[in-house]
Amino acid sequence: MSLRSLGVELHCRCIETESKRIGRHIERVELIPANSHCEDTEIIATLKKTGQEVCLDPNAPWVKKVINHIIANKKR
Amino acid sequence: MSLRSLGVELHCRCIETESKRIGRHIERVELIPANSHCEDTEIIATLKKTGQEVCLDPNAPWVKKVINHIIANKKR
Repeated sequence: MSLRSLGVELHCRCIETESKRIGRHIERVELIPANSHCEDTEIIATLKKTGQEVCLDPNAPWVKKVINHIIANKKR
Repeated sequence: MSLRSLGVELHCRCIETESKRIGRHIERVELIPANSHCEDTEIIATLKKTGQEVCLDPNAPWVKKVINHIIANKKR
């Protein structure tokens, strides 16, 4: 059973988004589509080394670029 | 400390990918860029209701479309 199904996280997870271009430090990215608990898409990157979670702005062109780069399966 | 930093998951997580177009059932999507433990990008979707994790094919046009739809922040 996920935390979400237990009633946790029934709100947006992101308060602010990272403005620096941190594409090369990203280990993985979680995409959470807009839903009844949060009206905006949330993009949460986990950083290499530190494992820190950072919210990214879905409207920032560099963020779209990073995601398209990942799904294009390009080696980094 | 993440499981990954403990030495777990030092291999690809996906064995096979979902061929059915399950875009509307997706609660969230995790993108894992190619790395030293797995030479392909992995896309793991968590399904609404069941919370089941399903691997998606990064090369399938419908998968790219679903991801672009999410990052375009379109309501579903």
